[in-house]
Amino acid sequence: MKYNSLNEANQAVIDKIVSAQPYLVDVVPAKSVIKELNGKVLLHAGPPIKWEQMTEPMKGSCYGAAIFEGWATNEEEAHKLLSNGEIEFIPCHHVDAVGPMGGITSGNMAVLVVENKDGGNRAYCTMNEGIGKVLRFGAYNEEVVNRLHWMKDVLGPSLSKALKLTDGGMNLNVIIAKAITMGDEFHQRNIAASAIFMKDITPYLVQTDISKEDLLAVTKFLADTDQFFLNIAMALSKAVMDSARTIQEGTIVTAMTRNGNEFGIRVSGMGDQWFTAPVNTPEGLFFTGYSQEDANPDIGDSAITEALGVGGMAMIAAPGVTRFVGAGGFDAAQNISDEMKEICMDHNPNWSIPTWDFKGACLGIDVRKVVETGITPLINTGIAHKKAGVGQVGAGTVRAPLGCFTKALEALVEKYAK
Amino acid sequence: MKYNSLNEANQAVIDKIVSAQPYLVDVVPAKSVIKELNGKVLLHAGPPIKWEQMTEPMKGSCYGAAIFEGWATNEEEAHKLLSNGEIEFIPCHHVDAVGPMGGITSGNMAVLVVENKDGGNRAYCTMNEGIGKVLRFGAYNEEVVNRLHWMKDVLGPSLSKALKLTDGGMNLNVIIAKAITMGDEFHQRNIAASAIFMKDITPYLVQTDISKEDLLAVTKFLADTDQFFLNIAMALSKAVMDSARTIQEGTIVTAMTRNGNEFGIRVSGMGDQWFTAPVNTPEGLFFTGYSQEDANPDIGDSAITEALGVGGMAMIAAPGVTRFVGAGGFDAAQNISDEMKEICMDHNPNWSIPTWDFKGACLGIDVRKVVETGITPLINTGIAHKKAGVGQVGAGTVRAPLGCFTKALEALVEKYAK
Repeated sequence: MKYNSLNEANQAVIDKIVSAQPYLVDVVPAKSVIKELNGKVLLHAGPPIKWEQMTEPMKGSCYGAAIFEGWATNEEEAHKLLSNGEIEFIPCHHVDAVGPMGGITSGNMAVLVVENKDGGNRAYCTMNEGIGKVLRFGAYNEEVVNRLHWMKDVLGPSLSKALKLTDGGMNLNVIIAKAITMGDEFHQRNIAASAIFMKDITPYLVQTDISKEDLLAVTKFLADTDQFFLNIAMALSKAVMDSARTIQEGTIVTAMTRNGNEFGIRVSGMGDQWFTAPVNTPEGLFFTGYSQEDANPDIGDSAITEALGVGGMAMIAAPGVTRFVGAGGFDAAQNISDEMKEICMDHNPNWSIPTWDFKGACLGIDVRKVVETGITPLINTGIAHKKAGVGQVGAGTVRAPLGCFTKALEALVEKYAK
Repeated sequence: MKYNSLNEANQAVIDKIVSAQPYLVDVVPAKSVIKELNGKVLLHAGPPIKWEQMTEPMKGSCYGAAIFEGWATNEEEAHKLLSNGEIEFIPCHHVDAVGPMGGITSGNMAVLVVENKDGGNRAYCTMNEGIGKVLRFGAYNEEVVNRLHWMKDVLGPSLSKALKLTDGGMNLNVIIAKAITMGDEFHQRNIAASAIFMKDITPYLVQTDISKEDLLAVTKFLADTDQFFLNIAMALSKAVMDSARTIQEGTIVTAMTRNGNEFGIRVSGMGDQWFTAPVNTPEGLFFTGYSQEDANPDIGDSAITEALGVGGMAMIAAPGVTRFVGAGGFDAAQNISDEMKEICMDHNPNWSIPTWDFKGACLGIDVRKVVETGITPLINTGIAHKKAGVGQVGAGTVRAPLGCFTKALEALVEKYAK
């Protein structure tokens, strides 16, 4: 190891996180930047998983993607295609991408492009579809598929044109720094960041050659989509954490993700390897007519935000979320972030949280501290119905399982004992 | 008195505050809604004041207004006109209006129109000009006057057209309720409310017939003006508090304002009467090159926000502001709001503050409690340079002087002793 100690290696990892310069630079068809998607291929959330093992909402998303791509005209055809093994699956994380909930991403879907101008690397994520019937939660009806087409044909190209008029893209560190003082934690609450994004992009949208009709549809969609920034936050988290992964040493968590069956983490010293354990099921508040019994087990790449130190780790920044996710009041929010700090190396000086007496967000989850304390990262998450086609039924919190951290620590011991 | 006790009267006053339904319904030339402005008349901030008594920044604003109206072509001509008594002055508060800092408002300036759909009354305020050289802080150069013309000719009419496409205007209770969870206190911090306002109005702006050039200029101005919502908050505070004034009994403060010399308050049981005492000078943080010595004494109608229970009263909602105004960290913010609660009747159930453990904003400043405790309202405020033409030099906090509350209490004792 080129570092004198694990602490020194870990410091190098978190230095990469702090020095990252993520910019939203474009929105493009996924297959134009992810070459693996030029075929009958779907990306999915979490560590590797086979079709047969997928939980229902992820399967529902696959139906929707197959219909969107024109590989099937209905659920039945899609099911046949998928069951016959005619579709290849790749984890988003293996191709510089992340995907919310099911994370199902196909070649013609529009993806956000976040470039880390410090590391030079890029990361991709589909755009937020809004609430209600949406692909990421396993819905796949006509409304869902039509929206995906509109996002590909209108929203994506419009934002792409607007972003090209900016000076090198939108500086996401700045938006995070502002919005973390405005009650966002960037997983279950992005209302401030989404509003800032819309406010900043609008004058550029106006300067493009898009039609008035499209400008109206785009601005209306952005105005109505309070979680629009979530997917930007995911792509930026991926871009930043992948930059941190280049250090290739140390005990810092560089990715956390769930495929509905398994929770997987990556650790700075262990490269691309996944350490997995069975996922927990989120608990929280449910929409009218639904209850805990309807909840699908934990799913989605969005826990990359917690790996970066926001989301549930930054609960104190967003006390409003603690009520939304059923986790209590202001004191509860503070207790959660204080607890999360126990498993982290430091505070991120870029993102000062006024409600935490101006301390920075959590920085660098250390596998050693997780195992030592038994405290696992808390994740704020949407809750999908366990049946395909229903969609989101609530929001809550869920703990990462200790098992994957224990496995990672064992592997690290083995590596560094050599 | 038709109430059985002062407490019952006060309850009626705060019930009016809570039941108010302020909507932003239009932006129009001031003289079209304030008939007194059809002549050589200027509105000013604070209780009544004569030209000779005005502090320099208010005088600077008068020069700018005279030039804007075409009554004078330069400072010299304006000064002559004003010194000769050719301009009549009326307090904004006497004609359903409020004005920031100098509060100088002339007939052709565009004003926001806020309608309280509960009381049916309306209130007016000029629009926020942004930062730097601006009329409200006493600057009056060409840039300032040109901007006022653009606001009259482009920004105002554009927003008016957009607002006419909405369903009865923009519901300001909703924006306040959202933004108070996002770090705004609506006096020195309006970044969230301004972003929400812009996000919500943009799709309507797009639907108007304004040119692409104007749409760009308007969206760019709104995107760049983080305090745009302040003036909306002022007009809504005025509309709400004027509705509360219809009760005409009790000991609740219904207006607080400053003209640079005197701090004036109105009290629910004493109708239109002003109770005044010499203003204090705000203390806080200064822009580079300026210091406390440059500060003009306290000025502006914006303390109507504190009368409503936000601004400095809601410091805990905006811990970021405590640093901006030099008042400390998170604990300081909490201490201030806890102290302010001691002089208020209740919490406003409409506007829950997550950082105050979800308690509502302060509601109903009781003159009796102010005098009894000696605690006077804390006001968050911009600081004008004491010389005309310079503009804003900082931001800070200032206390309302106890004297006006003591005078009001004496008058109330006299009234209710009969």
